[in-house]
Amino acid sequence: MNGAHALLHSLVASGVDVCFANPGTSEMHFVAALDGVPEMRAVLTLFEGVATGAADGYARMADRPAATLLHLGPGLGNGLANLHNARRAGTPIVNVVGDHATFHARYDAPLQSDIDAVAGSVSGWVHHSASSADVGADAAAAVAAARAGTIATLVLPADVSWSDGGAPAAPRPVASRVTAEPEAVKAAADALTCGERCVLLVGGDATRADGLAAADRIATATGARLLTETFPTRLERGAGVAPAGRLGYAADMAVHQLRGARHLVLVGARSPVSFFAYPGQPGDLVPEGCTVHEVVVREGAAADALAELADLVAPGTTPTLARASRPQLPTGALTVETASAVVGTLLPEGAIVVDEAITSGLGLPGATAGAPRHDWLTLTGGAIGYGLPAATGASVACPDRPVWCLQADGSAMYTISALWTHARESLDVTTVVYNNSAYAILRGELQQVGASGFVVGDGARAKALLDIGGPRLDFVALATGMGVPAVRVDTAEGFAGALRRAAAEPGPHLVEAMVPPLVA
Amino acid sequence: MNGAHALLHSLVASGVDVCFANPGTSEMHFVAALDGVPEMRAVLTLFEGVATGAADGYARMADRPAATLLHLGPGLGNGLANLHNARRAGTPIVNVVGDHATFHARYDAPLQSDIDAVAGSVSGWVHHSASSADVGADAAAAVAAARAGTIATLVLPADVSWSDGGAPAAPRPVASRVTAEPEAVKAAADALTCGERCVLLVGGDATRADGLAAADRIATATGARLLTETFPTRLERGAGVAPAGRLGYAADMAVHQLRGARHLVLVGARSPVSFFAYPGQPGDLVPEGCTVHEVVVREGAAADALAELADLVAPGTTPTLARASRPQLPTGALTVETASAVVGTLLPEGAIVVDEAITSGLGLPGATAGAPRHDWLTLTGGAIGYGLPAATGASVACPDRPVWCLQADGSAMYTISALWTHARESLDVTTVVYNNSAYAILRGELQQVGASGFVVGDGARAKALLDIGGPRLDFVALATGMGVPAVRVDTAEGFAGALRRAAAEPGPHLVEAMVPPLVA
Repeated sequence: MNGAHALLHSLVASGVDVCFANPGTSEMHFVAALDGVPEMRAVLTLFEGVATGAADGYARMADRPAATLLHLGPGLGNGLANLHNARRAGTPIVNVVGDHATFHARYDAPLQSDIDAVAGSVSGWVHHSASSADVGADAAAAVAAARAGTIATLVLPADVSWSDGGAPAAPRPVASRVTAEPEAVKAAADALTCGERCVLLVGGDATRADGLAAADRIATATGARLLTETFPTRLERGAGVAPAGRLGYAADMAVHQLRGARHLVLVGARSPVSFFAYPGQPGDLVPEGCTVHEVVVREGAAADALAELADLVAPGTTPTLARASRPQLPTGALTVETASAVVGTLLPEGAIVVDEAITSGLGLPGATAGAPRHDWLTLTGGAIGYGLPAATGASVACPDRPVWCLQADGSAMYTISALWTHARESLDVTTVVYNNSAYAILRGELQQVGASGFVVGDGARAKALLDIGGPRLDFVALATGMGVPAVRVDTAEGFAGALRRAAAEPGPHLVEAMVPPLVA
Repeated sequence: MNGAHALLHSLVASGVDVCFANPGTSEMHFVAALDGVPEMRAVLTLFEGVATGAADGYARMADRPAATLLHLGPGLGNGLANLHNARRAGTPIVNVVGDHATFHARYDAPLQSDIDAVAGSVSGWVHHSASSADVGADAAAAVAAARAGTIATLVLPADVSWSDGGAPAAPRPVASRVTAEPEAVKAAADALTCGERCVLLVGGDATRADGLAAADRIATATGARLLTETFPTRLERGAGVAPAGRLGYAADMAVHQLRGARHLVLVGARSPVSFFAYPGQPGDLVPEGCTVHEVVVREGAAADALAELADLVAPGTTPTLARASRPQLPTGALTVETASAVVGTLLPEGAIVVDEAITSGLGLPGATAGAPRHDWLTLTGGAIGYGLPAATGASVACPDRPVWCLQADGSAMYTISALWTHARESLDVTTVVYNNSAYAILRGELQQVGASGFVVGDGARAKALLDIGGPRLDFVALATGMGVPAVRVDTAEGFAGALRRAAAEPGPHLVEAMVPPLVA
């Protein structure tokens, strides 16, 4: 058995049976081995950033890692931005990065580069397989490392892949998540019940239904304000789930949400900081005089810790769950508000929402709060181009659930070829591209810069660099060019009709929603 | 004057007046400063890999660096593959990577990552600007470093950009290229005139007309076989230029070209190695018993060294220049052969050819050898997705010259959004996408793997992973969706007509050439 077969068998044995792949010559023996290991599903992407973003979306929904197959250092580089998002999400991923044969490295052939340096910037585990005899065990170790909540990158030299002497390896035990210290739980309980104003900020695995129910009980019993981290990895929400607001992305909103708190209790969330720095503004968002109590770290067993805490401070309290409620179907011109209401009206039971709508999505949380129960995946690391790929992976993980990919136009273009994989795999993904012809969030940032006196004259050249409307991107043509049926809408009624038709037909669809930018 | 203005003024003073940009919030003061420094042209790209590939194409034609503007570590990551190609080309580029404010770094905000590790993997020079007082001098140092033939990455914290106290800096002296040692020239001259079989392999700056003329004189006078490196950064060729064959990409072809050589004289080229390793095949392509004479390193002053060598061994010899000759315009079905002949028939005077045609381009060198004088840019580092971006930059550098981007379908999809920048900037770029619906080069590799007995059964799952024809990519729709007029052709006559119409109209065009894959 050659190394490639041993690798594939070992991945499957450890529960990794999907590989998002963009192979090259050095990966050809891995590709050839796929026919010998039919349990492994290989999903082709046309760009590595789609593969890594898909692996992120997959693991967020499947709760186990997928593999990626990437072509040397440049392939890894192309996947880096979505690996950054996955790192911030704590998503388990196993990257298999093909490399030159071990005996070829000395020649510094054209595709050679410093894979370790690049891999190390996003991975909690990096390893080169030294021989075909090792690669099975290396694969099992990679999966175990990933399952502990990190990115594991296994560099696979071509000769390790093609040489005989490989053997499949059994799964390795997975390190359990860090649990809360009893003293930390007790200290948080004391803070929550001391009568001073408290905020309970939850993240990590506590943004699913069970964790949120416990958090809601704590908030109800103690009067604490419940918030989730700004960008949850996977937020369960909708009717029947305990609702929780998210800490604001904009620093002034977050400051407002945290104002007056004397205690900030962190369960699976990091202490809040502003996303970017601004002149004269604080980066640390914890109010003056507020004591921070970390019950368990971001990567820890946050839902378990919340259950313990709820047992202490809210033993008799039942959670308040969101009631079913939909907005009224709006009519007339499509705007950020009416478009959000249409989504809230129609979002189906069990939907997976992949949210990269940026400014066009500001109305979505409110409009969907009472929609049927669904999952919400967010842009955890701020590296745009995550939506279409993550939707790919979420749909591969959950083929029986509808995926709604709510996508801004600017960020869509980073990884637009994901649409082709939607079509190739007949994924039930409905993509909404909000076309406002602008990097609208950056327009807002430029306004702030201008308000501080930094813009010269009319700022025409600066503004032009944030304008993506000349020429106007035609997402119907782009989707059609990649085999995804698409339609353009500019009214609420048209949008609703397009979403209904997409839901009624199998396979992927794209709806180009023409909306005015929030910042003109 | 804030740091951003000082940076822009200093770049311009050092001769960098084009910036390929994909900005974010941390770069907003750089963007705002553009209105104060109108000498700097900012070209917006929708993806960072387009920005870096454009900077590569620009510098290859302008012989001076452009800047890029990238958004923190993930933006740099997205640009990494084309920076890899630029590194292998020896192209000067100045990356400006925006970063969090210096005082914000301690918070490990979501977009933070190890920029140095990633930048270091492609850059010869990496530096963080520490203060607005430094940034002007840092910019001048970055340009000087880049002009010596490397990638210089300047990390620009947001507060350095927005803070006052900046001052423009004057240009810094540029290190001159490494020149050949007289002993090395003499040793090469001795080898070339000793009567044994010699190959003269030239690269670096010696693949322009002057270097090739000197190389041709040497070959004519001594009987040496003249070859250029496999992937020249910029190859001048066509009628009136001394012709030189390229060392083959396929190892067996290169072995054939070098067979029997007793001396291999390297002038600006690296000793030949195979692009990839294969089971049981040598990586070092220098024949047994052949002595290698390195006259000057890849990055050195190769054209000067060739002139010296020619003065020694070919004082009275004149170069043989390629004569004007065109293939006959073919008719009938479009194939790799007929499509190449059409290009050879119509390639205009002064064209810049950006070649990422991969298997569909195998007939191009022969068909264009006698076309009017032109430049040929190649995929130096093997990281696909270089063609459309490099064409962008080449056209910005040389607005009066027609750019023909000859592009494979699979590799086009990595950086397809470059078409939008072609349209936005009204670039005179004619893109030919050879649509064969396959990763055809990988099909060839899989056949080799199969010939060695590594394919299981009919290899259907492996083959499927190299098939990009389901759904078929529609490049006319994709181009139209980004504002580039496009047409699909499947006959030689149709292809010729489309190229003629593209040449007759200003601005960008795309021709989708439907060709059968070379490997079925």
